[in-house]
Amino acid sequence: MSAAPQLDTQGLEYDGKIRVTYNDMHILIQKTAPRIKAEFNPDLMVAIGGGGFVPARMLRSFLKQGDGEKRRNIPIQAIGLSLYEEVGAFDGTPGLAQEEKLGKEVVRTQWLDLSTLGSKPLIGRRILIVDEVDDSRTTLSYAVAELQKDIDEHLAALTPEQRAATPPTELAIFVVHNKDQPKACSIPSHVRYFAGEDTKPKSWICYPWEQEDILLHDAIALKQKELGL
Amino acid sequence: MSAAPQLDTQGLEYDGKIRVTYNDMHILIQKTAPRIKAEFNPDLMVAIGGGGFVPARMLRSFLKQGDGEKRRNIPIQAIGLSLYEEVGAFDGTPGLAQEEKLGKEVVRTQWLDLSTLGSKPLIGRRILIVDEVDDSRTTLSYAVAELQKDIDEHLAALTPEQRAATPPTELAIFVVHNKDQPKACSIPSHVRYFAGEDTKPKSWICYPWEQEDILLHDAIALKQKELGL
Repeated sequence: MSAAPQLDTQGLEYDGKIRVTYNDMHILIQKTAPRIKAEFNPDLMVAIGGGGFVPARMLRSFLKQGDGEKRRNIPIQAIGLSLYEEVGAFDGTPGLAQEEKLGKEVVRTQWLDLSTLGSKPLIGRRILIVDEVDDSRTTLSYAVAELQKDIDEHLAALTPEQRAATPPTELAIFVVHNKDQPKACSIPSHVRYFAGEDTKPKSWICYPWEQEDILLHDAIALKQKELGL
Repeated sequence: MSAAPQLDTQGLEYDGKIRVTYNDMHILIQKTAPRIKAEFNPDLMVAIGGGGFVPARMLRSFLKQGDGEKRRNIPIQAIGLSLYEEVGAFDGTPGLAQEEKLGKEVVRTQWLDLSTLGSKPLIGRRILIVDEVDDSRTTLSYAVAELQKDIDEHLAALTPEQRAATPPTELAIFVVHNKDQPKACSIPSHVRYFAGEDTKPKSWICYPWEQEDILLHDAIALKQKELGL
């Protein structure tokens, strides 16, 4: 039995964790963006906070619309969704008693502000939902279902003539990492799905914004890459 | 007259621009967080998108509330504000005609979702507004004024007894970089102000999420640090 590779001068052995640096994420998103643009070409991004904030801002730079001087940013709307899997995961959001959050449940802390999106806020749009990771797919499934409800409501308010004249409203998902494992929830097949990369089932992914020592994190990430881990 | 220092192998000369890497920003925010916690101790963050998304997510990690296992994330609400200073800065937000955005004006693309913040959404809170840069202070001034309107409205709906029993609602600002220059707009003196660092007047700051070549950006940033620029 060979020992696990040593990763730093403090004796940290390889623990199977995936360590993602900010630059790794930036480059991975940059590589994925042309495919998203070619195959979906979103005109609205919905960032799921907090994990989707950094990826969404990175992605926005690579999805600008138009050419040259006229390049325009795609608008981003943020929504706040948290997955509570056990007692004690309470995030301190007032107005939500801790008891309400037992079990595996998505808690909505912010939703779209449709008042700024014009008179037909979601209709005829190509909406890209962005998050950092697809683990059980529960949060993404919730986001798609709730957005679809809003879209259906707006569609129902149109006259048949208006509806016929409206291009289809399309939804897609982008996650930086998709854990290649059985999912607790599903997403309708008409919703396009983009992942920066697939990781092993149950991967433990360490994101840069969670790091107390970002330089050590980067050094270990580099060492793992050098060792092909 | 001495030549400007050369910064890369392609012959790029020092251009006075400040190049911020993701790790620079992470570390700067980490250094500032203890002061924010000690002097203000926010219980709600309001991230101004898109520039505030990355700083807000970084800062959240360093402002967790409580100790050990019970450490809880501070909720983040996102708002979307853009400053339009000239014709052509239209970001493609439907429902807002380009003509409406001439001149120097803050355009609101998303506001708080108060429905998730309990029955007295803003009252008695310590609210930290987060953005990446304080340039003319126009956007920050708008955010403070609009938040204060919401707070005043909620306070006015309370009975005198309720109001007397409520702790004060406090606002503060955190920006990663404050350009040390005359500001077009002001902020009330009771609003606390935190900046990761002050930069020279009219600094040209290159943020990492805008970079086409993040590795070159980092290499030039490192070279500038080595040269003390």
